[in-house]
Formats: sequence, structure tokens, C-alpha cells
Amino acid sequence: MDEQTRADAIHRLKSVAGHVNGIIKMLEDDRYCIDVIKQIQAAQTALARVSESILDAHLRTCVTTAIQGDEAAERERVLSEITEVFRHTSRS
Amino acid sequence: MDEQTRADAIHRLKSVAGHVNGIIKMLEDDRYCIDVIKQIQAAQTALARVSESILDAHLRTCVTTAIQGDEAAERERVLSEITEVFRHTSRS
Amino acid sequence: MDEQTRADAIHRLKSVAGHVNGIIKMLEDDRYCIDVIKQIQAAQTALARVSESILDAHLRTCVTTAIQGDEAAERERVLSEITEVFRHTSRS
Amino acid sequence: MDEQTRADAIHRLKSVAGHVNGIIKMLEDDRYCIDVIKQIQAAQTALARVSESILDAHLRTCVTTAIQGDEAAERERVLSEITEVFRHTSRS
Repeated sequence: MDEQTRADAIHRLKSVAGHVNGIIKMLEDDRYCIDVIKQIQAAQTALARVSESILDAHLRTCVTTAIQGDEAAERERVLSEITEVFRHTSRS
Repeated sequence: MDEQTRADAIHRLKSVAGHVNGIIKMLEDDRYCIDVIKQIQAAQTALARVSESILDAHLRTCVTTAIQGDEAAERERVLSEITEVFRHTSRS
Repeated sequence: MDEQTRADAIHRLKSVAGHVNGIIKMLEDDRYCIDVIKQIQAAQTALARVSESILDAHLRTCVTTAIQGDEAAERERVLSEITEVFRHTSRS
Repeated sequence: MDEQTRADAIHRLKSVAGHVNGIIKMLEDDRYCIDVIKQIQAAQTALARVSESILDAHLRTCVTTAIQGDEAAERERVLSEITEVFRHTSRS
């Protein structure tokens, strides 16, 4: 993954960690359940955005290198990983 | 996409269409809401499985060809499409 | 579920069945994989909309009746079903 | 929400925050993209489990109280919120 994507992902994950700590505070303050759930859903969406960004960078670096390379097993491996990641997100 | 994947996808989609018609019948018979919802969720899962299978075949054919090819714009296009498909599945 | 929701759900599911048959035709015509996947995702979204509508009606009818009723076991049952349906949609 | 659910949710969210910090460390250590994505997906799943648990408790407390109560507007409000939460999770 390129440096820009990595720095951006770290920045966004720090924001998610802060968000989750904020949700813990909401629970400690006994805030309304639905408000807590909405914040958890927002944190899930933020995580999904980070995954997408990393996957996009991965496709343009490792996957491209592997597919342009000579090793069939390596090509197979990187492509299977993409399918597996996709399967996880589309389970339901 | 290879012939095997295509034939398999057609077969599975025919099964989904039959499943959806069965759900319509459940509604006409005034079946219990939760049972209907569970069948709809099962049909969604079946559709997700077909998408995964087509994506997997697409990666091994069109995407591999494009990445091994000489056209940067074409490589860019196929990779952007993968990210876009992934984004749709991971929205929430 | 009320008649309006039921009629609407049947109408929308007939549309989904037609959509799925259209996707089968796309595959038979050897259309581009990503276009096929996007149509499958659209069909999944349409199914999700039907589930939501049925769940909403279910909450306002069966669930409300059960919760206002005297049977604790019945209240427990309808609430567990809602959680189970929610679990399925939020698996990933 | 009952105390047990609240304490459990706080405990699990602290674990998620630790998990996210671990993923940041993975990025700083330049770990393989797919391994990072899988950990992000695991964190999303953990968050989904917390939402489910809170929703389940909410149904058994606030929602049950509102539905057994005399205010139609309040009943309407709590039921609409459940549908809205469900819609968010089932978007795709």
C-alpha cells in the first residue's frame, strides 16, 4: 500500500478509536439505546470506508504486481484473497 | 467469465427466481411475517453467492487480462470497478 | 401484516422476479460481468426494501398485539424474532 | 437498557477500541493489506454484535414499556426507530 493510503488509514482509524471511546462514554452516561446504536453503526461505516481504501490501494500495488508477474500460484493467491474479502462483506 | 461459471450462475438465478415466486405465494397465503422475511433474507444470500462467483471469474479473466495488458486506462478502469463493487456490498 | 403492505410486497417481489429473469438474460447474452453484478446488487437492495416494509408492518401489528397481551412467553417469542432478523442483516 | 447489557456493551466496546489500536499498529508496521482488512472486518462484526445486544435489551425495556403505554405517538416513535435501525443494517 502507498504511503498516502497508509497515513490516511491510520488517521481514520484513530478517529474510529476516538469514536468508540465516545460511545463507551454514552453508555456510561446511560444515553438512549437508539442513539448509541446509531453511533455504533456510524463507526461500522467508517471502518468499511477504511477497508475500501486499503483494498483499492492493494489492487493497484500488490495485486497488479502479482498478476503481471510470472508465478501462477502467487496470482491465484492474491485473487482468492480478493474474493474472500468480498465474500465477508456480502454475507447477508 | 468462463462457461462453467456462467452456466452455474444462470442455474442459481433460476433457483432464486423460483424462490421469489415461492415467497409471493407465501404472502398470498398470508403466512407469518417473520417466516416471509427469513425467506427474503435467504434469497438475498443466494444472490450474494452468485455475485461472488461472477466476481471471482471476472478477476481471473477480464481483470487479469487488463492488468497484464499495455493500456494503463484499461487497468485503471477494471480496478476501479472492483473497488466500486466492494463499496456497494460494504456500505453499512 | 395489513393488506396494503401485503399487496405492495407482492407487487415489489414480482418486480424482483422479473429483474432476476432479466439478469439471467444478461448472462445468456454474455454481458459484461460487472454490469451483471451491479444488477444482482440492485435486486438484493430491492429485496431488503421489501423485508423492511414487512418488518415495519409486523411491528405495528403482531408485535404490538403480543406486547400488549398477557402472555409473557408470546412477548418473549416475538421480541427474540426481531433480534434474530436484525442479527441476520448485520452479520458483517 | 439493563445494567448487565450496559456493562457487557462497555466491556466489548473497550475490546473493540483495543482492537482498532492494534490495527493502527499493524499499519505502522506495514503489515500485509489483506491481513489488515480482515482485522477491520472482525472489528465491524464485533460492533454489530454490540448493536444487536443493545437492540435486544431496548426491545425488552423501552419498546415494551412504550407499547404497553397509552401514548400512541410514543408507540409510533419507538417502532419507527426500530425500522430505521433495521434499514441501516440492511441497506445493501
